[in-house]
Amino acid sequence: MTKQVVAGIDIGGTNTRIGLVDIDGNVLTDSNIKTDEYSSFEEYISTMHTVIEILQKNPDLEPVELIGIGIGAPNANYHTGCIENAVNLPWNDVPLAAMLSKYYPDINIKVTNDANAVAIAEMVYGNARDMRDFVVITLGTGLGSGIVSNGEMVVGHDGLAGEVGHTTAVPDGRLCNCGRRGCLETYVSAPGLKRTVFELMATSNLKSSLREVAFDGLTSKDIHKAALDGDSIALQAFEITGHILGRSLADVVAYTSPSAIFIFGGLAEAREMIINPAKENMEKYMLACYKNKVKLMPSALGNKDAGIIGGAALVWKERI
Amino acid sequence: MTKQVVAGIDIGGTNTRIGLVDIDGNVLTDSNIKTDEYSSFEEYISTMHTVIEILQKNPDLEPVELIGIGIGAPNANYHTGCIENAVNLPWNDVPLAAMLSKYYPDINIKVTNDANAVAIAEMVYGNARDMRDFVVITLGTGLGSGIVSNGEMVVGHDGLAGEVGHTTAVPDGRLCNCGRRGCLETYVSAPGLKRTVFELMATSNLKSSLREVAFDGLTSKDIHKAALDGDSIALQAFEITGHILGRSLADVVAYTSPSAIFIFGGLAEAREMIINPAKENMEKYMLACYKNKVKLMPSALGNKDAGIIGGAALVWKERI
Repeated sequence: MTKQVVAGIDIGGTNTRIGLVDIDGNVLTDSNIKTDEYSSFEEYISTMHTVIEILQKNPDLEPVELIGIGIGAPNANYHTGCIENAVNLPWNDVPLAAMLSKYYPDINIKVTNDANAVAIAEMVYGNARDMRDFVVITLGTGLGSGIVSNGEMVVGHDGLAGEVGHTTAVPDGRLCNCGRRGCLETYVSAPGLKRTVFELMATSNLKSSLREVAFDGLTSKDIHKAALDGDSIALQAFEITGHILGRSLADVVAYTSPSAIFIFGGLAEAREMIINPAKENMEKYMLACYKNKVKLMPSALGNKDAGIIGGAALVWKERI
Repeated sequence: MTKQVVAGIDIGGTNTRIGLVDIDGNVLTDSNIKTDEYSSFEEYISTMHTVIEILQKNPDLEPVELIGIGIGAPNANYHTGCIENAVNLPWNDVPLAAMLSKYYPDINIKVTNDANAVAIAEMVYGNARDMRDFVVITLGTGLGSGIVSNGEMVVGHDGLAGEVGHTTAVPDGRLCNCGRRGCLETYVSAPGLKRTVFELMATSNLKSSLREVAFDGLTSKDIHKAALDGDSIALQAFEITGHILGRSLADVVAYTSPSAIFIFGGLAEAREMIINPAKENMEKYMLACYKNKVKLMPSALGNKDAGIIGGAALVWKERI
């Protein structure tokens, strides 16, 4: 018997992960190509096609039928299928879905931004299965978000909605990579946590092992480790990060009043050090009518496969 | 021939306006009762019922058939049909739809908050007829908002979403009636404008006719009039109000990426003095991918009937 599968693709700045996913969200087989080692976008897409073909012929699998391709990528536009204004990819603007459809003219190809893909995965296979209103926040190099309202992704008129990381958390605050000031992700992200550590080193006299490390050498893992050892600056940095996240999550609630907010991603190992103060401050800053109703919890999805499953879920969502 | 009508009801702190509205959004006949002069909520609802009956028998009308009742009210919950935690009404928590349905057991009764009702009116009969993603901001004593995404009101899991007026515009800023600090509506609303005038009188040495007026006596109309006369403090107050609104609207765009944002309400006479700086600052603070795409414009709805039409549109929306 032939098994229907969807190719789920997770495009990141360094790696592009490709997997075949069944209707239950299982990754049956997967592979990886480097995002940044191709001379052209055409060559990259051609390689992506080759890998999808090879995966389908994996001898360990029962025979499969490819019924769709779903892709999560930074700055990807759900409406146009394009990557637009990307800053962390080798190409700024490329017609992703259209290029891939040359190889797959009869197959359903869906594209959305990476945080939205995680939200779709959470909705179809994760902790949000019975929810019509929820938000996913992805923490890593930046802060991404996917908002689901009335059971649908909020993508906006142009396909680009859901950039909570670029709302103003601190007016006239830190300079962001986007050119603006005070964006939430300049405070709440791996680099944001590091910036807070360096601010505390400048403004306080607290002793800290982190004072021995150069800015360029310090990682969020180091800060987490120092916090576990009781380092005052590391502990304060997490508190401040959680505080600012919580205040912004209170705004998220005022906008969309979700059943739950899921935290996903790269600061995962330090998750409770951020989620605990975030929860406390979200409740503190929320309007009375919302208090004690919104769950704030880790995502149910593993970091490794969430992007692949999320991409595939874009297609499977329509069949389930 | 009998004409089908919906009773549209606009509940405010002082007045409750009731009208019969046809499918094209015409208010065929209307009346008014005082919200705050009844000894009980039961008596208020009973009077509302009487007025609806009298309106249907208006001899100037062709025969009508009442097919639904739609109500916009402060702090009204779309899901439960209740008014919840109201601060500007004689009753804090009342089962509005359920009480009225005792008189109309077989009629479709819909309830939503007042800003959402205006948004629905804008969608069904106003400038948003061809839009699936837009936002309405109502300016008056407070700042209300109605968010439409994918053609549906964003009401959230509890029916209470869309409180942009209670997002944090200035961390640790002005005290709000809700008990929190820095809420957008403490800066952008009629009282917010006045507070800015008094802040400027305290922090600057600018001459101003407004220095002759007591806080309790000053209205937004006075400030508008002074601005038209070239009063520096009044002009600056509008600039600051528009600036803060614009920055928050950039956040609105990052959340929902609407085709348009409509400004409606009580500061209408001074609308361009707020919309112009708001537009400039919205563009300034927006993420690059959103720039020059979002319309910011006055609502197409007249102040007088928008609440009635919005209430009725809650029901008509399902038939059109």
